[in-house]
Amino acid sequence: MYRVGFTKMQGAGNDYIYVNTSVFPIRNPEKLAIKWSKYHTGIGSDGLVLIGNSYKADFSMRIFNADGSEAKMCGNASRCVGKYLYDNHLTDKTELLLDTLSGIKLLKLQVVDGKVTYVTVDMGIPESIYIMSEGYAGCMIDMPIMVGKKSFKATAISMGNPHLVIFVDDVDRIELEKVGSMLENNPLFPDRINVEFAQVKNKNSIRMRVWERGSGITQACGTGACATAVAGFMTGRTERISSVNMDGGVLTICWDGETDHVLMTGDAVKVFDGEVEID
Amino acid sequence: MYRVGFTKMQGAGNDYIYVNTSVFPIRNPEKLAIKWSKYHTGIGSDGLVLIGNSYKADFSMRIFNADGSEAKMCGNASRCVGKYLYDNHLTDKTELLLDTLSGIKLLKLQVVDGKVTYVTVDMGIPESIYIMSEGYAGCMIDMPIMVGKKSFKATAISMGNPHLVIFVDDVDRIELEKVGSMLENNPLFPDRINVEFAQVKNKNSIRMRVWERGSGITQACGTGACATAVAGFMTGRTERISSVNMDGGVLTICWDGETDHVLMTGDAVKVFDGEVEID
Repeated sequence: MYRVGFTKMQGAGNDYIYVNTSVFPIRNPEKLAIKWSKYHTGIGSDGLVLIGNSYKADFSMRIFNADGSEAKMCGNASRCVGKYLYDNHLTDKTELLLDTLSGIKLLKLQVVDGKVTYVTVDMGIPESIYIMSEGYAGCMIDMPIMVGKKSFKATAISMGNPHLVIFVDDVDRIELEKVGSMLENNPLFPDRINVEFAQVKNKNSIRMRVWERGSGITQACGTGACATAVAGFMTGRTERISSVNMDGGVLTICWDGETDHVLMTGDAVKVFDGEVEID
Repeated sequence: MYRVGFTKMQGAGNDYIYVNTSVFPIRNPEKLAIKWSKYHTGIGSDGLVLIGNSYKADFSMRIFNADGSEAKMCGNASRCVGKYLYDNHLTDKTELLLDTLSGIKLLKLQVVDGKVTYVTVDMGIPESIYIMSEGYAGCMIDMPIMVGKKSFKATAISMGNPHLVIFVDDVDRIELEKVGSMLENNPLFPDRINVEFAQVKNKNSIRMRVWERGSGITQACGTGACATAVAGFMTGRTERISSVNMDGGVLTICWDGETDHVLMTGDAVKVFDGEVEID
């Protein structure tokens, strides 16, 4: 029997269990992620995040989903890692390099009274997604796509993972459960796709709802917010900076015109500290 | 800012946050129960249980549901209180009197290697529920009741709260969402009623699914398991001792022939210890 200290944190309503593996080594994260994530009999979370050392960056992060699978990267989790490291005095830097399965990410921490409140993550350069259908091969920007008998205009963007962004007049009238599933499995996207329905509130503000590939409707999605802001600017609907309002929270996205990098800023909140026994 | 230590525990899949108020006084439990029970932004639980001193029993227990309302009693929570008190060396008794809003309850603790594993709670004496309809006034034992066009045989029993127990051949084929709601709101029960569908596996074993008044389908219900075992014996289907298997776990119910008291035995599991800040 061995006691593991952990912290539960959330960003934009996305909650993970954070463990500093330099102090508490974890042997079988896949199994623990499944066990600990359960809401009634476990700690309850969207997954388990392991914070560790790195020989190529300041620290490393590994993310295990509630089903035990390993995620490459999660913007909401990386912000909380920044807060964890600074608030617990594991670093005094306010710019940190984080080693993740999808490369090294730069974090910028905003500190108030010795604690991190907001974190900006460099989410890298967005890329177009090429599609092939009868008579067309190329990228997809405001292109018509059918769902049942209805036609939407969709933009496909990769932020490391694939997103299909659809702007509509009233996002809350979309039957996301039904339409999301149909679009995810549209044969245009052999690897399936995440789906965002978005509504422009003004040139710098978007309301967005997300259907995540493999998960269904979720409260928020960091890469989805980035893809939505990028699609908004690409199609002339919004400016380079916009706040994306999701059910779980708000993220501010800036698509930098000089570097082409997408910068995502959002909250990072500590919920509680805990200790759990493992065999 | 003030740090409160807590323990998350579960019994039959019913999980609460437990706080020893002798060490950590809690001022506004209704608000904290709502805040802390949230799964993504709070600790995540079915509610908050406050353990305290009592001038008329060994200890006291108060239960606040996730919506902030106060519950009178919960068998699953009372078992965890027993484990909390013994495992944390706040008592060395294995028979404890617990002061609850529905009276003083007797707990018997089973201890293995210095830790409580199972707890038996004296749930008191079951009572009949009297109903009045056209041409009938009296108790309800295996009496026909209509749901839509279908007729079931139902037994109404109070374990402090009201239960309607219906034995069927295949409990998993019942459309509980639909049928439970209709029965809960049947005009025969002006205070509404909890609904249990049960299937006899053998003379000492019942499979049960529960629809809780005001909550809908839940994983397990302690008083519902008691009412089901009592109804099983009253109608000649089962013996005085039976295990009741619910989605959340198993409870063993014994309806004592000498005292008429119902004794409920089940697990009590510590999930983790935590510390949370309050303003």
